[in-house]
Amino acid sequence: MKVQKFAIADATLERSPGQDADIAVGNLVDERHGGPVTIGYGRYGPDQSLAETIAVDDVMIVLEGRLTVSSDAGTVTAGPGEIVYMPKGQAVTIRSHAEGAVTAYVTYPHWRPAHA
Amino acid sequence: MKVQKFAIADATLERSPGQDADIAVGNLVDERHGGPVTIGYGRYGPDQSLAETIAVDDVMIVLEGRLTVSSDAGTVTAGPGEIVYMPKGQAVTIRSHAEGAVTAYVTYPHWRPAHA
Repeated sequence: MKVQKFAIADATLERSPGQDADIAVGNLVDERHGGPVTIGYGRYGPDQSLAETIAVDDVMIVLEGRLTVSSDAGTVTAGPGEIVYMPKGQAVTIRSHAEGAVTAYVTYPHWRPAHA
Repeated sequence: MKVQKFAIADATLERSPGQDADIAVGNLVDERHGGPVTIGYGRYGPDQSLAETIAVDDVMIVLEGRLTVSSDAGTVTAGPGEIVYMPKGQAVTIRSHAEGAVTAYVTYPHWRPAHA
C-alpha cells in the first residue's frame, strides 16, 4: 500500500450493523486493503447512545463535539483533539451530547470481521 | 487494560531519537502497556522536515496546522481533521508549514521497538 490522505468527505457514512441510533461510520482503510488496521470516520447525532462490548482495540479521536464513554473504569468525556482508547473486551456505553460529535477511528485488528 | 481518555497535556513531548528537527512526540499507550497499538501526540514547529522509512503502519490525524507528506505515491497535504496513512515500508518526507502542526497518531505494531 501507498501513503494516502483522507478527509471525512471521502468516507461513506452508514449506520453500523446491529444498532439503531443516529450514529454512522465509514471505513476508509480496512480488511479489503491488505493492511493490519482499519481507519475511518464516525458521526454521532445529538444525544445518541450506543452500548457494546469492544471486539478489537479501538482508538477514537474526537474531532468535533463531545463524547462520553462509560465503562467499568468509570466515565470519561472527550472533546476536540482528545482521544478515547477502548481496549478489546471492554463493555462501553458511548453517548453524544446536544451538539453531536465527529470522530476519526483506528482499530487493530479490523473491526468489521470481528464484529460479524 | 481499561478505557482511557487522553489529551495532549497528558503527553510528555520529546524529540524523537535520530532526528534533529523541532518535532516532538509523546506516547500515551505503547509497548509498556500490553496492548497491540501505540497511541500518542506529536508537535511540529514551523517549517520543519523529517525524512524516514516508516517502520510500522502509522496513522496520523492532523489536529492543528498542516503537514505535507511526500512519498513515491506523490505529495499530500493534510489539515485539521484529516488523516494521513503511512503504511509500513514507505519512504516519506513529512514537512510542516509556517503555522506548525499538532497530530495524534496510532501505530501498529509499536513504533519504538521497531525503530530501535
